[in-house]
Amino acid sequence: MRSIMKFSKIPAVTITRLSIYSRCLEALAQEDVKIIASDKLAQKCGINPAQIRKDLAYFGEFGIRGVGYFVKELLSEIQRILGLNKTWKMALVGIGNLGLALVAHENFVRQGYEFVAVFDVDPAKVGRRLPSGQIIHHVDDLDKVVKEKGVEIGVIATPAGKAQNAAHRFIGSGVKAILNFAPIQLQVPEGMAVENVDFTVKLDNLAYHLTMAEP
Amino acid sequence: MRSIMKFSKIPAVTITRLSIYSRCLEALAQEDVKIIASDKLAQKCGINPAQIRKDLAYFGEFGIRGVGYFVKELLSEIQRILGLNKTWKMALVGIGNLGLALVAHENFVRQGYEFVAVFDVDPAKVGRRLPSGQIIHHVDDLDKVVKEKGVEIGVIATPAGKAQNAAHRFIGSGVKAILNFAPIQLQVPEGMAVENVDFTVKLDNLAYHLTMAEP
Repeated sequence: MRSIMKFSKIPAVTITRLSIYSRCLEALAQEDVKIIASDKLAQKCGINPAQIRKDLAYFGEFGIRGVGYFVKELLSEIQRILGLNKTWKMALVGIGNLGLALVAHENFVRQGYEFVAVFDVDPAKVGRRLPSGQIIHHVDDLDKVVKEKGVEIGVIATPAGKAQNAAHRFIGSGVKAILNFAPIQLQVPEGMAVENVDFTVKLDNLAYHLTMAEP
Repeated sequence: MRSIMKFSKIPAVTITRLSIYSRCLEALAQEDVKIIASDKLAQKCGINPAQIRKDLAYFGEFGIRGVGYFVKELLSEIQRILGLNKTWKMALVGIGNLGLALVAHENFVRQGYEFVAVFDVDPAKVGRRLPSGQIIHHVDDLDKVVKEKGVEIGVIATPAGKAQNAAHRFIGSGVKAILNFAPIQLQVPEGMAVENVDFTVKLDNLAYHLTMAEP
């Protein structure tokens, strides 16, 4: 059994790929596939087989040579590694169109992420109830509500100008991880995990492909 | 000068990192920084200096040993490589909360991506005008409108069940690149570039960090 210390040196890109493998394996499990050859899994994930073997090797030995991977076993192992064998509690700041879309997004709950609290500063919104059931709290109550509900991940969907303030609120309340949709680089103390969602980075990939494809 | 053929073998992760470098360099240019040491640029981007050198080496020689990189020059070179020295025309299918958030998102235009057409199937929406000025067209008119407007990138923000149909429409109209926000794997013919935006992959990274950080 490898130690946690060893785990913490895993490259971030490997963690991202594990997440992608888990999505592919879930789809396979739903199709009732029991065993999958390593090259078939690779094809399904759009990642080459050597890379998959290398990524999994950080965590132990998986699969049987000449046979492949047991779908359910590998899936539950990856979920354990990623910490997905529990439901993570999230709070959202910013109930605009993006915030509403996030709260309603079917994928979060399916993947083990649940919005347990939502916040805004707009007096026209605070106190109202979303179709999904959550009452919109004022950001001034973030600290209290986050502690009451045991929020673990803060999600920021405010305009750029209000994102740093939202981050300060989360930091002050003891939240250690932030998913940031606002188009700014947040300043956070050491030990905070921040992931930025920037849609335009994905578009740059497409632009590059289109540019390369031109005759 | 290296050839296009050479370019097309660049790893996708390198392209994604170039995109991140361009964001950092833009911020530096705005702060009126002329030259930046390679380790400072690395720090700003959150990527190690050796990786930056390796990524840039695919495209030529950049920076001056012991001095650093010229911010504006490197930025415009990366933008040229990525194909960002033009504005890309996008069309959106699915005017729900997410679609509205995307059309209003300040970052797209800033980065050279413009929504020139939007589509939905809801009779209550079709024919109405968005605050940003676009008229919502019916998806049945996608082929005609996409050709008229010269759309290059299709963006899908429909529910999962309607995304494949939206993809078929784009494919039929000759669009060669799709940004997909729906939580399904799209089936597309060879030669199509598809990028999927899955917010939960970012959350998995946070969950992993939180799991590792536990005492």
